[in-house]
Amino acid sequence: MTETGDGAGTVAVLGAGAMGSALATPLRAAGWEVRLWGTAYDEHLLDACAAGQPHPRTGVPVPAGVRLYRSDEFAEALHGVDTVVLSTSSAGVVDTTAAATPYLTGVRALLLTSKGFAANAEGRVGPLHKAVQATIQAQGWEPVPVIVVGGPCLATEVAAGRPTAAVFGCADRALAQRYATRMGTDVYRAHATEDETGVELCSSLKNVYAIALGITDGLSKGGHQPSDNLKGAVFARAVTEMVFLVEALGGEASTAYGLAGAGDLEVTGMSGRNKIYGSRVGAGQAPTTALAEMAAAEQTVEGVPAARLAKRLVDQRLEGAWPRLPLLRTMIGLVDGKATVSDVVAAALPRL
Amino acid sequence: MTETGDGAGTVAVLGAGAMGSALATPLRAAGWEVRLWGTAYDEHLLDACAAGQPHPRTGVPVPAGVRLYRSDEFAEALHGVDTVVLSTSSAGVVDTTAAATPYLTGVRALLLTSKGFAANAEGRVGPLHKAVQATIQAQGWEPVPVIVVGGPCLATEVAAGRPTAAVFGCADRALAQRYATRMGTDVYRAHATEDETGVELCSSLKNVYAIALGITDGLSKGGHQPSDNLKGAVFARAVTEMVFLVEALGGEASTAYGLAGAGDLEVTGMSGRNKIYGSRVGAGQAPTTALAEMAAAEQTVEGVPAARLAKRLVDQRLEGAWPRLPLLRTMIGLVDGKATVSDVVAAALPRL
Repeated sequence: MTETGDGAGTVAVLGAGAMGSALATPLRAAGWEVRLWGTAYDEHLLDACAAGQPHPRTGVPVPAGVRLYRSDEFAEALHGVDTVVLSTSSAGVVDTTAAATPYLTGVRALLLTSKGFAANAEGRVGPLHKAVQATIQAQGWEPVPVIVVGGPCLATEVAAGRPTAAVFGCADRALAQRYATRMGTDVYRAHATEDETGVELCSSLKNVYAIALGITDGLSKGGHQPSDNLKGAVFARAVTEMVFLVEALGGEASTAYGLAGAGDLEVTGMSGRNKIYGSRVGAGQAPTTALAEMAAAEQTVEGVPAARLAKRLVDQRLEGAWPRLPLLRTMIGLVDGKATVSDVVAAALPRL
Repeated sequence: MTETGDGAGTVAVLGAGAMGSALATPLRAAGWEVRLWGTAYDEHLLDACAAGQPHPRTGVPVPAGVRLYRSDEFAEALHGVDTVVLSTSSAGVVDTTAAATPYLTGVRALLLTSKGFAANAEGRVGPLHKAVQATIQAQGWEPVPVIVVGGPCLATEVAAGRPTAAVFGCADRALAQRYATRMGTDVYRAHATEDETGVELCSSLKNVYAIALGITDGLSKGGHQPSDNLKGAVFARAVTEMVFLVEALGGEASTAYGLAGAGDLEVTGMSGRNKIYGSRVGAGQAPTTALAEMAAAEQTVEGVPAARLAKRLVDQRLEGAWPRLPLLRTMIGLVDGKATVSDVVAAALPRL
């Protein structure tokens, strides 16, 4: 006999951008009833989905059977679901959570694909899943467990059904494992861990370190001199610093050298805006100019605000840690124009 | 006052191939007197160096002041040196060590850039540096400390003076640090560790896992479907298994997620023969055919014998470890035609 609710259920995915729509592919394949809700900014995305066209952000149509909900159909989207996936922009997560709270009766878990560190009203930096939990409790509702979703998961490939290994992090590891099983398919698999903070920290920091990997690519292209050895050194330094930070915050080293850290960094360092930004800088463009040009083209570089939040996090919580974080410290300086590419090279190499 | 011998000294580099000749660049820059000795197979390489031409394997001329020694000038090359670098092919290291032993009086360290695991006369697999030490002691000579050199160090870039982070592993960590200091330059830096076995294990295993990274590239190219998420999953799985193996053999996790493991894997997975072999297999060629074609073109794929040695190592020393090593086990099967690309994909993803 199967325990009630251990098979597929009904899920509301809040946010119809790249990752939200992409998850519809494995969720439908695993037998879930999927409701995809779009914010007011997602109207054109839902239009494409409703017309059976490829989703503009993933290039893949959402699978058959996905129900689409417009921004004003929020209550309908959430009615009677047992699971919610939060996939809006990181900036919108807390507001979306606050709006959803009255509808969470019967919801057994919130999965959080938007992630990163966020500052609370007092300016104290913490992981986004804590802000989600605090938002629910501030309204006087019972807490709902949050599962942080990390790992090397480009949305385009998840949508296309390419092999993907995610990480589900939740203090209630058994719950994370249950969801890994309920949502898993032949090609979408999740590793369950209780280290929710480590998953979220790595998901955020890998964007910062991907800029450094991009810089080594830019050095190769700009100076016509290969810098693969340096890329290896940067990669090792990045993983070593993530291990240190995760452990210092009470998490597990294996999160940082596994899927959420090294795995996600590998993918993020291959493509994407953080890497492109770094590559411009490595090829000789001033960091502030590169960022301004990309901003003008509406290309957000997530690693830049992530670097600044990381600085506040370390300053607030990890006294004396900076000597163990030479690359992170240098990247923070770089995005604010206070460190150079040469400083990045020096930070990646062992000291004499 | 400087302690005697803590500045640059006189070094004999045995083996004039890519890595041996490449090390002449940082060694000369650090002020060493460098003697480069070539085996009988290296004559044409020394000819090019003697003519001031680029070294055929690195594309870079050896720096001014390097003294070249032919295979029959072995004794002259070793006379009065305080340091020896062993850079012949792995297969030739033990014979070269045996020949060098009578000349090692006054030599304070052997640096070993050739590496990997090797079987002794009884078929028991162990790290190459132990075989080097055993060879010296078998002749009744005093042991000479061996420093294992690892990390992301493509010889072409070391020769060209590009930024490089090496690892020097030696049970006598202070000695490794002293050599890191004596040989370090602005662009060639070494991290010292006592985990000599971990460095050697990672240097060998990364070739096996680089084949798996190549397979993900081949899947992308062959099927015109991107497999970057899978590449991230393979990378994380590889580092996780290297951490497990290094710790099981008494080494440190940080070796495997640092320069010698993750760092070297990053570089090895970007280019080179292991990656090319994997890429052919991922694109659909049978593993045995791919290997035969590359062998016919005189392209050695180091990861193939390394996989077989790794199997013997685990069988002999780590009872019950195979369930923790699904990717390694699958790669061993693949090179012998007993596992498929689908098996590699399955091994890289978490289990349901």
